[in-house]
Amino acid sequence: MKHKDAYTVAVLGATGAVGRRMVETLERRNFPVGELRALASPRSAGTRLAFRGAEVEVQAVSEAAFAGVDIALFSAGASTSLEWAPRAVRQGAVVIDNSSAYRMDPDVPLVVPEVNAQAALGHSGVIANPNCSTIQLMVALHPLRRFGLEHVSISTYQAVSGMGQTAVDALRQEIERGDGEPTVFPVVHQDRHVPMAWNVIPQCDVFVDAGYTKEEMKLVWESKKILDLPGLKVSPTAVRVPVLYGHAESVAVRFQRPVTPGQVREILQSAPGVVVMDDPSRAQYPYPRMAEGTGETFVGRIRQDLWDDHTVLMFIVADNLLKGAAYNAVQIAEVLVNPAQA
Amino acid sequence: MKHKDAYTVAVLGATGAVGRRMVETLERRNFPVGELRALASPRSAGTRLAFRGAEVEVQAVSEAAFAGVDIALFSAGASTSLEWAPRAVRQGAVVIDNSSAYRMDPDVPLVVPEVNAQAALGHSGVIANPNCSTIQLMVALHPLRRFGLEHVSISTYQAVSGMGQTAVDALRQEIERGDGEPTVFPVVHQDRHVPMAWNVIPQCDVFVDAGYTKEEMKLVWESKKILDLPGLKVSPTAVRVPVLYGHAESVAVRFQRPVTPGQVREILQSAPGVVVMDDPSRAQYPYPRMAEGTGETFVGRIRQDLWDDHTVLMFIVADNLLKGAAYNAVQIAEVLVNPAQA
Repeated sequence: MKHKDAYTVAVLGATGAVGRRMVETLERRNFPVGELRALASPRSAGTRLAFRGAEVEVQAVSEAAFAGVDIALFSAGASTSLEWAPRAVRQGAVVIDNSSAYRMDPDVPLVVPEVNAQAALGHSGVIANPNCSTIQLMVALHPLRRFGLEHVSISTYQAVSGMGQTAVDALRQEIERGDGEPTVFPVVHQDRHVPMAWNVIPQCDVFVDAGYTKEEMKLVWESKKILDLPGLKVSPTAVRVPVLYGHAESVAVRFQRPVTPGQVREILQSAPGVVVMDDPSRAQYPYPRMAEGTGETFVGRIRQDLWDDHTVLMFIVADNLLKGAAYNAVQIAEVLVNPAQA
Repeated sequence: MKHKDAYTVAVLGATGAVGRRMVETLERRNFPVGELRALASPRSAGTRLAFRGAEVEVQAVSEAAFAGVDIALFSAGASTSLEWAPRAVRQGAVVIDNSSAYRMDPDVPLVVPEVNAQAALGHSGVIANPNCSTIQLMVALHPLRRFGLEHVSISTYQAVSGMGQTAVDALRQEIERGDGEPTVFPVVHQDRHVPMAWNVIPQCDVFVDAGYTKEEMKLVWESKKILDLPGLKVSPTAVRVPVLYGHAESVAVRFQRPVTPGQVREILQSAPGVVVMDDPSRAQYPYPRMAEGTGETFVGRIRQDLWDDHTVLMFIVADNLLKGAAYNAVQIAEVLVNPAQA
C-alpha cells in the first residue's frame, strides 16, 4: 500500500458488536485515519458513532461508498462479505474481512500479525481475519513451534458476544426474566433452542460433519493455514458458556520432544502479544473478566502433563471481540501501512 | 447389614445443599427409613426439614445421636467427618461419607454403585462417596473398559453449587448487584478472590502440587481406585463456570484398540445410570440445565477423534448435587440394605 500520512478507512458493519470495536480500536491505537466511513445495511443508516470526539453518521453500503477508500474493515457476515468485498476491491480498497467467507481461500492470506504478518503483504485485495477462538490459540502456540507442534487438544469456554450483540442482550434477559422460551442459543437460525442462563452448551455454530461443529472445524482448518503446518493435528471441542466477553481455552499441546513448563513460560514471557499470568501460589491465572477490553492473549495454568513429558497443559484467554476480531483486524491494517514491521 | 423392614438413618450436615438433597432423595427413592435423624452443627439445630409430609427437627450432632442408627449419611466437610465418623461407627452405624476425608484410605471402599457396588459390602464401618466430577466420569467410562482404557483427557465445566449453598447465593448476588468486591470464589478460605459472574475460573479447590488443583488430582486418584486400574492415566483441567447446578465434562478417551463412536453409543445406551443424548442433526446433546434434578449421567457429542481411531471424544453431564453427591450416597445405602443387587 502506498504510504500516506492519513488513510481513508471504511468499516462495514459499523453498528455491530465487532464493528463498533473496530471504530474504537482505530481511535485507541491512533491509526492514521484521514476519513472514516462507517457503513452498514440501509436499516442501520443514520446511526451516529463517536470517533475522535466527533460524530460519524453511518451510511448505507454502496459501491460508491468505497470510492477512494484505502482500507475497508468488514464485519457484517459471510454473505455480505461475498457481495461487497469484490466491489470494494474494484474501487481500490484492500478488504480486511472478519467473516469466514474467504478464510480458507488459498489466494487469501489468513493473518494473525504476531504469527504471519508477512503473509498480509501478499494479498490480492482481500485479507481474512481468522476466527476468534483460533486467533488466541495461534498467538500462544506460534512461539512454541520451535519444539515441534504435534497435537493440540482444545476445549473452549466461549463468550456469547461471539454471536453478536443480540446474544449478549438475550443472555442478560434470560437471567433477569428467569424462565422463558429460549430463542437465540446455540444458533439463531436453528429449529431447536436451548437456555443459556446458568448453562453451558456444547455447540458453537452449526454441525458440519462427523459430529463436529463448524466452530470446531475452524480451529482445525485455520490453525494449519495460519501456522503453515499442514500436518498439525487439532482435536477440538467448542462450548458456549454464560460469559459476555472473553473466550477461554483449556489446551494440551503435545510436542515432538520433551518440553518443560519452565521452557514454555520463558518463551511466552517474551512472545509478542502474550501476557503470562501463572503463579498458582498466588492464585494467579487468566480469566475472561480480566482480559475484557484488552488486545493481549493471556496464558496461565502452564503445567506438565502428568503422564507425558512431551505434553504441556495451559489455559489461554483473550477478549474475543478485540484480539479475537476488531483488534486483530486493525493490527493487520497497521501491517499494511507500515510493512517494515511485518 | 442385617435385613430389616425399616432402618434408622441419620443425615449429618442435613441443612447443607447436599444434606437437604440426601433427605429428599431418601424420600423420592422410597428408601425404607423407619426413623430419620437430621443432624448438624449446634448452629443449625432447630431448623425444620420436610420429610414424607411431616417435619423433622434438626438436632445438634453428638455421639448419642448415633445410638441405634443403621446408616449415617455424612456431608459436613472432611474435618467433621474425621471427628464424627469413628463415633458413629462405634455406635454401630455404617457411615457413607461424602467428604474427601476417607476416599483414598485403602481400607475404605470408594463406591459408584454402577461401577463397584460389590466393594461397598467389604466396608469396615465407613464407605466413601467419590468427588462429584469423578462420579459422572466413572459412570460413563466403566462400561467402556472392555476396549481397554488407556488415557483420559478431561476439561470440566463445574457448577458453583459444588462449593455449597453459599456459592449459589454469592453468584446470584454478584450478577444482581453488578460489580462489587468478590469474596467467595474460587475458594472461600483463600486470600485472593475472583469474580464469578460472567466469568470462568480455572481453579476448583486449592492448588496442591505440580501446578494442579486438588479437584484435578481427585479425578486422577479416585478414578484409578474406583475402576481398580492403577495404570489409568487421567489428564485433568478443572474449571468453575457460572452455572448453579450440573457439572459438564469435555472428555477424550484413548483406548488400547480402535473404537468407533457407534460402538461407544451402543454400549452406553444399555449401561446402568447412563442416558445417551446424541443426535447432532437435531441439536441433541446434554447440558447442565437438562440434567438438573436427575440421578442419571448424560452423554453426548460422541465422536471419533479426527486423527486417532483409538480415541473417542464425548461430553458428559450430571447433577453434581444428586448423582455427584446425594443420589450416589443413597444408592450406596440401597446396596447395603439389598446386597443381592450388588
